[in-house]
Amino acid sequence: MMRDVAVIGVGAHAAGKFSDKALKDLGREALWRAFQDAGVGPKNIQVAYFGNSLGGLLTGQEGIRGQVVLQESGVGGIPVINVENACASAATAFRGAWLEVASGALDMAVALGVEKMFVGDVAKSISALAADSELELSQMGMQFTASYAVHPKINLKGKMKEYGWTTSDFAKVVVKNSYNGSLNPYAQHRRRLSVEDVLNSRMVADPLTLYMCSSIADGAAAAVLCPLELAQRFTDKPLITVAACVLRSGIYRLPGDSMPDSLTLTAAEAYERAGIGPEDVDLAEVHDAMAPAELMVYERLGFCEPGEGPRLIDDGVTGLGGQRPVNPSGGLCARGHPVGATGLMQIAELVWQLRGEAGERQVQKSPKVAMAQNQGGLLLGQDSAAYAVTLLKH
Amino acid sequence: MMRDVAVIGVGAHAAGKFSDKALKDLGREALWRAFQDAGVGPKNIQVAYFGNSLGGLLTGQEGIRGQVVLQESGVGGIPVINVENACASAATAFRGAWLEVASGALDMAVALGVEKMFVGDVAKSISALAADSELELSQMGMQFTASYAVHPKINLKGKMKEYGWTTSDFAKVVVKNSYNGSLNPYAQHRRRLSVEDVLNSRMVADPLTLYMCSSIADGAAAAVLCPLELAQRFTDKPLITVAACVLRSGIYRLPGDSMPDSLTLTAAEAYERAGIGPEDVDLAEVHDAMAPAELMVYERLGFCEPGEGPRLIDDGVTGLGGQRPVNPSGGLCARGHPVGATGLMQIAELVWQLRGEAGERQVQKSPKVAMAQNQGGLLLGQDSAAYAVTLLKH
Repeated sequence: MMRDVAVIGVGAHAAGKFSDKALKDLGREALWRAFQDAGVGPKNIQVAYFGNSLGGLLTGQEGIRGQVVLQESGVGGIPVINVENACASAATAFRGAWLEVASGALDMAVALGVEKMFVGDVAKSISALAADSELELSQMGMQFTASYAVHPKINLKGKMKEYGWTTSDFAKVVVKNSYNGSLNPYAQHRRRLSVEDVLNSRMVADPLTLYMCSSIADGAAAAVLCPLELAQRFTDKPLITVAACVLRSGIYRLPGDSMPDSLTLTAAEAYERAGIGPEDVDLAEVHDAMAPAELMVYERLGFCEPGEGPRLIDDGVTGLGGQRPVNPSGGLCARGHPVGATGLMQIAELVWQLRGEAGERQVQKSPKVAMAQNQGGLLLGQDSAAYAVTLLKH
Repeated sequence: MMRDVAVIGVGAHAAGKFSDKALKDLGREALWRAFQDAGVGPKNIQVAYFGNSLGGLLTGQEGIRGQVVLQESGVGGIPVINVENACASAATAFRGAWLEVASGALDMAVALGVEKMFVGDVAKSISALAADSELELSQMGMQFTASYAVHPKINLKGKMKEYGWTTSDFAKVVVKNSYNGSLNPYAQHRRRLSVEDVLNSRMVADPLTLYMCSSIADGAAAAVLCPLELAQRFTDKPLITVAACVLRSGIYRLPGDSMPDSLTLTAAEAYERAGIGPEDVDLAEVHDAMAPAELMVYERLGFCEPGEGPRLIDDGVTGLGGQRPVNPSGGLCARGHPVGATGLMQIAELVWQLRGEAGERQVQKSPKVAMAQNQGGLLLGQDSAAYAVTLLKH
């Protein structure tokens, strides 16, 4: 019933600190680059999905954020849908755009994700990341990084015990990703870090040191989608199609429940829809909000057996020249994590990689299938609030 | 390509001031009523769209609002999409749910709209309604009611001069709607007002008096949608189908441009998709954020010629016993305007009316076609940010 959908253009604004740029400025730059890349103009666009997570609290722009960013861009008169799903807001926007085109409702959609986190008050930026504000901020006085370190579902220290993972294993994830980020002009942090750099950086929430954590960032990214059968009217670039686009919320956990975690379920659904398996994925951008997450993500995506994540790093499997590069962009810790833009920064990176346009950080084998894994909203007592897995094919 | 979609259940929490209830409490009550009405349980639901506009600024719950409201409701593991479009947030949620089912992506969707506006600081609640916060609040010090009165696109005083409309004409809209609201247990304001009451109430922004303006409110509403062909597995109530569901953003206006206004364009698209005309609409819920808006909406929906709105009120055409009742619920000024819930409160009212379940406020003829018109986000220099027109058929 669904049509094949192509991603015909992507564009991004680098992640980082851009004190002189507002939400609008970041968004418009990503939008125009995506339009140019796709060979379309604003009048071609029939629906826009706008992802942003923190604009209300951080910039005071609570309502109709997309329309405010899009005004004066020439996009008007079309449906504009503002979506939010914490750190998965941009993947949610991408899924909306995909559904519009896949369903036949419309023929040309744009998904735009933007975040403006540097607003002068870092404590405010961090507080805004609370998942359940009433519970965490009011009753527990807890903030994002701490909730990551102590969350019973993540259970970092338990994993270290069970699997024998060490803080060096976590640091090696950062080393790999900081190298990738050093080659990426869109990356926020471009310094190549050593294991020692990472381990000697300030302890944020045991066992997480500063360089194991993604930092706050401004940034934006966009993608233009149309039916595969119309794509060549606009572009002669290699055609990238959406093989699966899956979004799920977490499951509310009862003590001792034996259901697989929600990321495993989301990835399984994506593989099934695309008719492929983990072994077919040539490269991936994954959600390493904190470095250890990348190791857990490996096993949940089926890239390795439980606990075997550090081996993939040690053997170079997920390095830029490896068999299955992960986070060639540098990932959230190096490329940056402008919350409501991250999911689309991943999509943009994968489109460039699949086309062979990623410059110095181009993965070495010619990739055919790429995965973006984005998630958001850490609720106590259950899995994360939103999981998104997208498979792109060349 | 699209499937016929039925609205098999609706539910609402009354609009008003509910100091002891949080966003979660309001939302869950509407959700459970909709589930009961539809004959479904949380496990039947395959996707949830959550509409809310002001929760970030007013309650501090910026991210994943839908997941926070839905947790402990038994809804989990499914896609949850948080959408925002100012006063049209709930209509945007409804459209999302409709698209999922119509496209065949999924078979059972819920749309839930919730707003919590009474948070102790009324000035904060009003400021949060700013469309372009940077421009209006920082540079112009202007607030919502004032922008409605002076907005060049609305041009209230110009309309009064052009059409000979008087403040009594505006007051009569309020009188009609306050009567309807007095019969509605979901209404915030249930006092029957006279023309004198309205004209003698405090001047808010010339020519708008207090009773011509919708007030801040808490409230929630939900709708459950499935393919028409599956509806009778769940319910033996009269089947209500979605004949059209159209969302558009406003057009950026250049001086002297002669394009029809965006509501006219949105309604025209809805009529075309449903294959009907204005003459086929038996009743409507429209967006009277301020009373004069209802008169302007009449002509833009094709219910009368330009300027003829007051005649429809004087002749009782749009009264509860008239040929085409408008705002039988009491509309935004009497039923109430909990921003992110309003569009779904409209849908709920129309479903009850089409089924003949509206009690004392049941319209007198047996309606077949009903329209919900919801809009939001008043940007200076262009039309509103979002327009939604939904046609339901019995």
